[in-house]
Amino acid sequence: MTEPRPLDRRDGGTARIDPPSLERGDARLLGIDIGGTKIALAVSTVDGAVLAGDVVPTGAADGAEAILARLADAGHALLGRTGRPAAAVGAVGPGIIRPDGVALSPNISGWHRVRLADELAARFGTSRVAVDNDVKAAGLAEVRHGALRGADPGLFVSLGTGVAAAIAIGGQVLAGAHGAAGEFGYDLRTPHERRAAADGYSPLERAVGGRGIAERALAVLGAPVTAAQLFARTDPPARRLAGEVLAELAMHVANLCIAVDPRRVAVGGGLTGIGTALFDALRARLDAAVPFPPELVPARFRTDGALHGALALATDAYRSGRPG
Amino acid sequence: MTEPRPLDRRDGGTARIDPPSLERGDARLLGIDIGGTKIALAVSTVDGAVLAGDVVPTGAADGAEAILARLADAGHALLGRTGRPAAAVGAVGPGIIRPDGVALSPNISGWHRVRLADELAARFGTSRVAVDNDVKAAGLAEVRHGALRGADPGLFVSLGTGVAAAIAIGGQVLAGAHGAAGEFGYDLRTPHERRAAADGYSPLERAVGGRGIAERALAVLGAPVTAAQLFARTDPPARRLAGEVLAELAMHVANLCIAVDPRRVAVGGGLTGIGTALFDALRARLDAAVPFPPELVPARFRTDGALHGALALATDAYRSGRPG
Repeated sequence: MTEPRPLDRRDGGTARIDPPSLERGDARLLGIDIGGTKIALAVSTVDGAVLAGDVVPTGAADGAEAILARLADAGHALLGRTGRPAAAVGAVGPGIIRPDGVALSPNISGWHRVRLADELAARFGTSRVAVDNDVKAAGLAEVRHGALRGADPGLFVSLGTGVAAAIAIGGQVLAGAHGAAGEFGYDLRTPHERRAAADGYSPLERAVGGRGIAERALAVLGAPVTAAQLFARTDPPARRLAGEVLAELAMHVANLCIAVDPRRVAVGGGLTGIGTALFDALRARLDAAVPFPPELVPARFRTDGALHGALALATDAYRSGRPG
Repeated sequence: MTEPRPLDRRDGGTARIDPPSLERGDARLLGIDIGGTKIALAVSTVDGAVLAGDVVPTGAADGAEAILARLADAGHALLGRTGRPAAAVGAVGPGIIRPDGVALSPNISGWHRVRLADELAARFGTSRVAVDNDVKAAGLAEVRHGALRGADPGLFVSLGTGVAAAIAIGGQVLAGAHGAAGEFGYDLRTPHERRAAADGYSPLERAVGGRGIAERALAVLGAPVTAAQLFARTDPPARRLAGEVLAELAMHVANLCIAVDPRRVAVGGGLTGIGTALFDALRARLDAAVPFPPELVPARFRTDGALHGALALATDAYRSGRPG
């Protein structure tokens, strides 16, 4: 496949100019995963070979402008090491990344107003830019290159600090009408739940996400305990709380599977670090509750799925032939 | 559009013969909705004009063979009134209608072994046959001709004796890997639910479907009360139970919307007969719990959505040009 011919926008968008002289193998794709604490970057060829990678601190407290400058600097430095500018950029992060801002966005000052695609286009000199939610991107990476290849529908579930899913249908991740499909961290836990999305509250995530688990462990055990530490403990109160967390997670993953009837479920995120207890709990619940129980597998990309997804988005932006 | 040329299967499937001399406007499509108590039938033109309809009792106690004979007789009688044989047949019913039988099927002796598409092809002399679940078909009717036109994703929720949904994406109803997507009557209600799909039990439907409501009303009120009667009563115990049912239904519909992020939700099924209480409860919960609350509307087809869906399936089978 050769590079699509870009439109010459200086000529009213109607004339065409020759494509850049770069051969396909020379084109560089930049992927960026903007997390709450760190920004991960990678440069690949169009064929998916990763040439270089880097991680820099997000510095969320510095605000949106500083973060954009930092990721641009890191991106240009990385591209410099590979000797080429970016032919396309894919960037992912928490929240719903829309053209005019980031909804349901993380706690970064000014981030909800950031026009991320426009900023990246300006800072990297290409309009071949694609942006998406990080969990949806990780799901895309699993569908394209990972544990969900050939599974239709496929379900990627990310269990960690955040609790969210990506529903893959026909090889594409379901966006939903507002880009918010799969955000089951907002699930109601009971019929009479008092606080929910309209209050900026995500009931399920607050109960069984990483922070919620730590808060509940502190309340029950009387000492600060991370989720990983909780699941490693053998004392009855800890085991009881761990069991409750797993049972509630498993119920909501099962109900998600009842809705989607996936062929396969891939589980990623930090909570997979607790090992077989998580998969055993999910397996038992899926077998009991889902009319046609799906396969259940660990995600291929345990920590860098979103970054691989960002590269997949960059690949799509490159191939879509939007003017660069 | 002219009728696709059918393959001549008598000649090894390679030769083509001329299409039947029927003009498109003359072709007759037969739709059949096989319910637990009655079978509804309709004949339409390819343009969707319904020419005739009929309803016959299912006679579920008589078993599969008798039911097939009865619907064939009724279908031929109906086609006879329109003066033409069926150019295509669409049939819908509860359960997952697969080529080799009906899974999660209703309580009809032998029905789980019925090869419904083959039976209809033989009995109506056409291999242009499409079959599907009745709720998915009703969702298709809403997407094609009803309240979900232009809504992507759209969600059709059927609340009545059964509790199920159809998720419409890109104008098509999501089947899922085994045809069971949207069957949220199987939803777990609590993390420690004891009986579920593997036991042939649908926890949510048993609690808030028509029969479940009647059972709970009998237990609470001490007298046989239908769902409709329960919601019409004004005594505090009845109002309390009605409130519990609506809150639980609303929670599960909200969680379904969180998963799918639909633009619009259309609600059908017998429970819509209770009026505004249902829509008020759903509206309040969707507004509170779904990050981007969808529109909420009554389904266009209040009682005959599945039959309209059967006609839509027949239309698709006709247009797909499978050999007749």
